[in-house]
Amino acid sequence: METVAIFGVGLIGGSFALALRHAGFKGVILGVSSPRTIEQAVALRVIDAGVDEETAARQADLIYLAQPIHEILNSIARLNPWVKPEALVTDAGSTKTAVTQHASRYLRRCEFLGGHPLAGKETAGVSSAEPQLFQGRKYVVTPFHSEQLAVTAVRNFLIWLDKIGAVRVVLDPAEHDRAVAYTSHVPQLAATALALALKNSGANLDVFGPGVLDMTRLAMSPFSVWKDILETNSSEIRSALSIYIAALQRLTDAVGSEDMRNQFEQGADLARQLRGSKLFRGVE
Amino acid sequence: METVAIFGVGLIGGSFALALRHAGFKGVILGVSSPRTIEQAVALRVIDAGVDEETAARQADLIYLAQPIHEILNSIARLNPWVKPEALVTDAGSTKTAVTQHASRYLRRCEFLGGHPLAGKETAGVSSAEPQLFQGRKYVVTPFHSEQLAVTAVRNFLIWLDKIGAVRVVLDPAEHDRAVAYTSHVPQLAATALALALKNSGANLDVFGPGVLDMTRLAMSPFSVWKDILETNSSEIRSALSIYIAALQRLTDAVGSEDMRNQFEQGADLARQLRGSKLFRGVE
Repeated sequence: METVAIFGVGLIGGSFALALRHAGFKGVILGVSSPRTIEQAVALRVIDAGVDEETAARQADLIYLAQPIHEILNSIARLNPWVKPEALVTDAGSTKTAVTQHASRYLRRCEFLGGHPLAGKETAGVSSAEPQLFQGRKYVVTPFHSEQLAVTAVRNFLIWLDKIGAVRVVLDPAEHDRAVAYTSHVPQLAATALALALKNSGANLDVFGPGVLDMTRLAMSPFSVWKDILETNSSEIRSALSIYIAALQRLTDAVGSEDMRNQFEQGADLARQLRGSKLFRGVE
Repeated sequence: METVAIFGVGLIGGSFALALRHAGFKGVILGVSSPRTIEQAVALRVIDAGVDEETAARQADLIYLAQPIHEILNSIARLNPWVKPEALVTDAGSTKTAVTQHASRYLRRCEFLGGHPLAGKETAGVSSAEPQLFQGRKYVVTPFHSEQLAVTAVRNFLIWLDKIGAVRVVLDPAEHDRAVAYTSHVPQLAATALALALKNSGANLDVFGPGVLDMTRLAMSPFSVWKDILETNSSEIRSALSIYIAALQRLTDAVGSEDMRNQFEQGADLARQLRGSKLFRGVE
């Protein structure tokens, strides 16, 4: 692997570039981003140079798509005529079914591997990028089939994931999207809905404790981050929301009854289980 | 005010005793609690002595009920024959309608004022008590009618609330209970329901980020804290849960549509509004 092209040199793309360097990558790192981001990324020595997407795709052994999901989809639809046959294209989008389906349709001339690094920061942009961002974090990869992991270009990428300290998790794209519907997308919508319920309640909002602040923090997430996620995982999200609403309805029925104790205890078990899992130590 | 009796010398009751001392109270502070707690509270110099409830009630100018709600209700039902007519009984329970109705029925020989200090800590018990616990925190009082605030015993208590640094909020008991149904009780149940939905989902819970940890933290609250709250505010809680479920159903309908942006923006506004309020600075 001599040339890497990062499409979307933001927090994730920039951190991946820095992490590669930090782990000993000696080749060229190209960036495809807006002129302003390229200028910043070159000045910060995150990338070696900015180029257009065709130039990047023709030279790269690894193409790392770290754009918003709809731009990842657009890039995938355009790359095929330019890519080297031995290259790997991978992405860092938060949903995987739409992206991998798109890749299997449009990207026929080289290998594609879907990816989702469970890494992030409060601040975005290349100026927040750091080489340690993936260290100890889970990094989900979603091959089309398990044999794909033995293909040379894929195997090399996985070795680099190990070198940058990421903890690999292999999942089917649909299993990934179903999991994040519950563990990420519904929690976001639960927070937004709670904020909306407070707004609609007409209740005196002078009186509250710290719990509601925990429970509405996610409601401040910008919609720009969520638009593509919601659009590309809508059926799993609707189904997970219906399970959540059903759990709330059972709790409503249990208010004032002995069954409530049982439900609290089951909920507490799960909350502790999440915190005890290896993953939590990874992504905290 | 020469003698104060604290019923339930835990975190709140013990902190109230320490706060009074710290603010210059020179009289006697009696405690009514389990023998073990009394021993600890005397050793820590939180109270001067432990006595039985009749002795406490016969001597006290201020009776401060800082027990679990069902014990507050029991105490109120027993105190009437013993209290001094010029005394004030007040409580620190998290719901106010049941307590104030109970007091208006059973406590005829002296004044009663409902209260709810929005103060707390992760740890419970008299060993966690501290004189600064109420400093800058909202302290809701729920008089039967506004003229009650001019009654001498009540006025004296309110002056002590000022002296211990609490920020007084006067609310009608029903308005208080409606507000906390939205700002405290539904957030708790929303977290418990999310944990239950995750448990019931069958989804792969290896994959998650920090958001779901925020959203399930409250699910670890012990049921013992919530049992009385849920039982004494069940009708407001059921009604607030139905508003929350309706908000989730509207979000479900909006998944993948342009209306989602509008809902995110409204939710974000409310979340920021909570954080900008004076109260937040008080109770963080």
